[in-house]
Amino acid sequence: MKLVPLGDKVIIKQLQAEETTKSGIVLPGQAKEKPQQAEVIAVGPGGMVDGKEVTMQVKVGDKVIFSKYSGTEVKIGEEELIIVKQGEILAIVE
Amino acid sequence: MKLVPLGDKVIIKQLQAEETTKSGIVLPGQAKEKPQQAEVIAVGPGGMVDGKEVTMQVKVGDKVIFSKYSGTEVKIGEEELIIVKQGEILAIVE
Amino acid sequence: MKLVPLGDKVIIKQLQAEETTKSGIVLPGQAKEKPQQAEVIAVGPGGMVDGKEVTMQVKVGDKVIFSKYSGTEVKIGEEELIIVKQGEILAIVE
Amino acid sequence: MKLVPLGDKVIIKQLQAEETTKSGIVLPGQAKEKPQQAEVIAVGPGGMVDGKEVTMQVKVGDKVIFSKYSGTEVKIGEEELIIVKQGEILAIVE
Amino acid sequence: MKLVPLGDKVIIKQLQAEETTKSGIVLPGQAKEKPQQAEVIAVGPGGMVDGKEVTMQVKVGDKVIFSKYSGTEVKIGEEELIIVKQGEILAIVE
Amino acid sequence: MKLVPLGDKVIIKQLQAEETTKSGIVLPGQAKEKPQQAEVIAVGPGGMVDGKEVTMQVKVGDKVIFSKYSGTEVKIGEEELIIVKQGEILAIVE
Amino acid sequence: MKLVPLGDKVIIKQLQAEETTKSGIVLPGQAKEKPQQAEVIAVGPGGMVDGKEVTMQVKVGDKVIFSKYSGTEVKIGEEELIIVKQGEILAIVE
Repeated sequence: MKLVPLGDKVIIKQLQAEETTKSGIVLPGQAKEKPQQAEVIAVGPGGMVDGKEVTMQVKVGDKVIFSKYSGTEVKIGEEELIIVKQGEILAIVE
Repeated sequence: MKLVPLGDKVIIKQLQAEETTKSGIVLPGQAKEKPQQAEVIAVGPGGMVDGKEVTMQVKVGDKVIFSKYSGTEVKIGEEELIIVKQGEILAIVE
Repeated sequence: MKLVPLGDKVIIKQLQAEETTKSGIVLPGQAKEKPQQAEVIAVGPGGMVDGKEVTMQVKVGDKVIFSKYSGTEVKIGEEELIIVKQGEILAIVE
Repeated sequence: MKLVPLGDKVIIKQLQAEETTKSGIVLPGQAKEKPQQAEVIAVGPGGMVDGKEVTMQVKVGDKVIFSKYSGTEVKIGEEELIIVKQGEILAIVE
Repeated sequence: MKLVPLGDKVIIKQLQAEETTKSGIVLPGQAKEKPQQAEVIAVGPGGMVDGKEVTMQVKVGDKVIFSKYSGTEVKIGEEELIIVKQGEILAIVE
Repeated sequence: MKLVPLGDKVIIKQLQAEETTKSGIVLPGQAKEKPQQAEVIAVGPGGMVDGKEVTMQVKVGDKVIFSKYSGTEVKIGEEELIIVKQGEILAIVE
Repeated sequence: MKLVPLGDKVIIKQLQAEETTKSGIVLPGQAKEKPQQAEVIAVGPGGMVDGKEVTMQVKVGDKVIFSKYSGTEVKIGEEELIIVKQGEILAIVE
């Protein structure tokens, strides 16, 4: 199953946070605040969105920082994805 | 009875979720959170909407992901439908 | 008495819902949630509305689906009417 | 004293409602919800209002339906008037 | 001290209300709801305001009706003045 | 240290209010509501701000009336300053 | 790891406040209200943002005053950064 975002929408998947305690034990990230880093899974075509021309600036595979509280969470099969507008992506991590 | 949406409106019908328990029993989806997948039933003509030119990008039969909390639920005869603006459709499922 | 709506206003009259119980008795619709179907009674001229050109797409006699919670209810003589903007009409029923 | 409305403002005066009981006694309308019918007392010149060209479509003497909760009530001498924007007038009663 | 309003701002001074009781005693207006009539004290130059061309339509000395709850009250020396946008002035009293 | 405001921002410094009691004792203004008069300390370049052309109309040294509740208070060293948009300045005191 | 902001976004890092008590002891700034001064770490390309042309006016290394309550805090490794829109930067400190 493939998701094709409309307009300026971007589908991202949150990166799992891991934390190593001082003793070296790796704790999975569930109990902590979710990181705001994600990987871009699919990118809309841009174009005329709400009367404004939007050029897409992210591409599939980009690691991005996105705005907490933004976007719509969707569960596709087993995967939890987030669909955001490109304007809610704050920065690309290189 | 046929519904003809105005402007950038799209009529969608939510897809029923089914869940198979580990023992193999299929449970109908009512008691769970409604899935955000729907099938497009009818598509408005687009054109000038609220002073902005809108080109329709979905077509009848498309499976789509839509934004939870958006749209107006209408009951036409026995059918429960949702009328959303195209901008509230996030992605097409292919 | 005749009502002439201004701009993009449309005057509609809610259709009465009827429900047939399994035993065949028809119950009038008052006690239920009001249906969102209405008949168009009068249509404004459109034109420049709030700085945007609006072309009217509904006509007198159309059966329409309108957005719950929208519009202004007015009582003219014995008749209860609703005045909505055309943008609050979601679809035409054919 | 004469009131000259600015821009797209219209000065209206609410019409008194009367109700005849079944026994034929006419009750004055104070205790009931105020009717939304009014008579136009003065009309602004229209023109550029908030960056948008407005053409006035109502004239002095018109009976109009206006949007409940809109407008500013002013008391000029003994008269209670309401100043609304033309866009808050829904329809003309002919 | 002279106040020069910027843009579409207008400085007005509320007119005092007086009320004559039935016995003929004149009561000063403090304890009553403030009247919405004011005199124009100074008028901004208009021009480009928030991206929109504004032409000033009131002049110093005009008696005006203004929108309750609008404007900023300022105390300059002993005088209590109100600074409103021209759009918050509803009508000129002639 | 010098502050250079961006866009339509203006840096102002509130004027201290002093009050002379009837006995002639001057009380410093802390316990009273702060006056809305300020002196302009620095003025942004104007230009394209949020898609709109802004021409600056105040200059360093101007005494101005500003809108209560507007602006951001900043403490630079010992000085308490307020950064407002020019649109939040209501009038120049001459 | 390098952050590349999109559009009109600017990545800033809050400057630590230090306070010297009268006895000369330096107290680290944690317990106090955070200062609104920050250093610019990375600057987006500007261009068309939300339908409006934005020219970037800050550069990496600038000390800036930013609007309290604005921006999104992100933690990248050990560093706590804030991503703001350029419009939320009030002034450059020279």
